[in-house]
Amino acid sequence: MEGELAHIGAGIAALGTGLAAIGVGNVAGNFLAGALRNPSAAGGQTATLFIGIAFAEALGIFSFLVALLLMFAV
Amino acid sequence: MEGELAHIGAGIAALGTGLAAIGVGNVAGNFLAGALRNPSAAGGQTATLFIGIAFAEALGIFSFLVALLLMFAV
Amino acid sequence: MEGELAHIGAGIAALGTGLAAIGVGNVAGNFLAGALRNPSAAGGQTATLFIGIAFAEALGIFSFLVALLLMFAV
Amino acid sequence: MEGELAHIGAGIAALGTGLAAIGVGNVAGNFLAGALRNPSAAGGQTATLFIGIAFAEALGIFSFLVALLLMFAV
Amino acid sequence: MEGELAHIGAGIAALGTGLAAIGVGNVAGNFLAGALRNPSAAGGQTATLFIGIAFAEALGIFSFLVALLLMFAV
Repeated sequence: MEGELAHIGAGIAALGTGLAAIGVGNVAGNFLAGALRNPSAAGGQTATLFIGIAFAEALGIFSFLVALLLMFAV
Repeated sequence: MEGELAHIGAGIAALGTGLAAIGVGNVAGNFLAGALRNPSAAGGQTATLFIGIAFAEALGIFSFLVALLLMFAV
Repeated sequence: MEGELAHIGAGIAALGTGLAAIGVGNVAGNFLAGALRNPSAAGGQTATLFIGIAFAEALGIFSFLVALLLMFAV
Repeated sequence: MEGELAHIGAGIAALGTGLAAIGVGNVAGNFLAGALRNPSAAGGQTATLFIGIAFAEALGIFSFLVALLLMFAV
Repeated sequence: MEGELAHIGAGIAALGTGLAAIGVGNVAGNFLAGALRNPSAAGGQTATLFIGIAFAEALGIFSFLVALLLMFAV
């Protein structure tokens, strides 16, 4: 049994990256549902859309960062 | 017991790829639900649809990338 | 105890393939719910339906690819 | 079998980071759904949006912090 | 195999921190959904919002505390 335990940890961290995609999908999905119901208001909420995506995406990228650190830095 | 621990990690990372598909499905599903209720507004939100899919898909591809790195690079 | 650890990883990766089916089902399910409420608009959204399915399916196929690589390539 | 058990722990902690993204996505998604239904009230709730995102994001960052501590401090 | 089993426990405890963020997101998201539907009543419920966030956040912080204790105190 070769390999390091950190490699299993990197795989689990990548799982966290996938979970964050559910959060991102939640933000974008709700924006689309609302924007198609009231298209005239969609332009004014685009900034909020990107803020929401950015915060959720950041957590996914933190998780990806942990996976990279576990593979190459520790 | 042969094989490396990294191979289990690659499998778990592929699980994250699948989870990201739930986020992508959430975006596209909400777009379709809204577009069929108000078809005239669908054209104006196509750009937002692709933005939402791209951010969620990116996290899934990060997860796939971790799986590839665990199999071939570490 | 024969067999390789990679075989466990392939099984977990196949789990990710199944999770992606939830995303695909979400897209197609929302399309059907909307198309049955407003059948005259369904024709114009067929292209979006296939785009949504394709992106979610792609993540499931990536996961399937990891399972195949774990069984035959590593 | 090299490596430390703490590396598996770091991967699991990164999973918590991804889970927090679902909470962040929930806050931002509900704000967008409401703001597109009633755009004139959206400005008055922006502070609440950031408070909600901040509290959920903080928990994700705590989880990320545990991952970093497990990799580099213990 | 170096390291202590407590380090895996710390990672799992951090997973609880992330799960608590889903609860926080649920509280803040529902407040925002209601406040944007009836903005004039939102001011009177701000105290309840913070109570709800505080209780959910506290559980996440307890989970974070368990992770810290497992890393440094036991």
